[in-house]
Amino acid sequence: MYEGAVQDLIDELGRLPGVGPKSAQRIAFHLLATDAADVRRLVEALTQVKARVQFCETCGNVAESAQCRVCADPRRADDVICVVEEPKDVVVVERTREYRGRYHVLGGAINPLENVGPDDLRISQLLTRLADGTVTEVILATDPNVEGEATATYLSRLIAPMGVTVSRLASGLPVGGDLEYADEVTLGRAFEGRRVVGA
Amino acid sequence: MYEGAVQDLIDELGRLPGVGPKSAQRIAFHLLATDAADVRRLVEALTQVKARVQFCETCGNVAESAQCRVCADPRRADDVICVVEEPKDVVVVERTREYRGRYHVLGGAINPLENVGPDDLRISQLLTRLADGTVTEVILATDPNVEGEATATYLSRLIAPMGVTVSRLASGLPVGGDLEYADEVTLGRAFEGRRVVGA
Repeated sequence: MYEGAVQDLIDELGRLPGVGPKSAQRIAFHLLATDAADVRRLVEALTQVKARVQFCETCGNVAESAQCRVCADPRRADDVICVVEEPKDVVVVERTREYRGRYHVLGGAINPLENVGPDDLRISQLLTRLADGTVTEVILATDPNVEGEATATYLSRLIAPMGVTVSRLASGLPVGGDLEYADEVTLGRAFEGRRVVGA
Repeated sequence: MYEGAVQDLIDELGRLPGVGPKSAQRIAFHLLATDAADVRRLVEALTQVKARVQFCETCGNVAESAQCRVCADPRRADDVICVVEEPKDVVVVERTREYRGRYHVLGGAINPLENVGPDDLRISQLLTRLADGTVTEVILATDPNVEGEATATYLSRLIAPMGVTVSRLASGLPVGGDLEYADEVTLGRAFEGRRVVGA
């Protein structure tokens, strides 16, 4: 309905998650009315993110070099790995200040309906990290929903026979919820009360 | 909480209207995971919109040249102008396919609480367009809220003495709606504006 460039921008914005046609239109007209400098900053941020951000070779977290900040930090405990689904979950756990070990980002959860199987996740990389015996505990912090639980069960069956303690975040997290939306206190309690599974 | 480039992008996205911190994070991680080509298309659309889009010299609508598509169209009627608040309202009216005249975009509505007075709107440009007597009717299609009504009243007092017919879009029940859910003011307007049928 709009002339070329405006409609193109509305179309592109409408492809973003959680941005419907009305929001896309609202954002486009907001950008039309704002300073060219503000739009340049957004363009620069978009360009930089694709140019500079990569995934950590060790844990799969977002990083601006071969190792992410957590993996590069010598003060973190090497004997425990917290397994999460997505890089944003690392930030959520870090915010609790309860956890001082390492991470492993799977890149999702097992989800047969969306054709995500174990081979699509960074599971073999996790097993490689456990091979030398340094790690004595793996904390499964996948989301407390069906896919996250299935992934945790799958992992505990793989890892427990290797002689590594496998734990799961305690109840206290709302079931059917999403790790991303948990508050710090609840998530901290869940760390304290983690249970050994698959023994 | 995130490393440089990711956090910068989340901050910039969070400045957009209707995008909160959670949405900004979700969009940023979506963009991290998508093809570089998709991000380039978004960047290109943002850049093009600022480079190519301007406001029509005549009506104030968005345009990619000195005149917008409606003003440049010789088939549109020259004797009637529909006055709207924003460029997006032009699109809404066009979608009805009921209107074949010209437009005038005010760039907002009179709103004392936000310090928007008549001088901040494109009112003098509207009066200039009415000066040569070509226009015989001005349809006031500002929003049916307090600011839109105030703006319509202000404009009708300015324009009616010039010998131009001034009309206001009808207020009433939305088609496909339900009498039970109509608010009192709307229902009152629907009674006021009732039309004789079946005569």
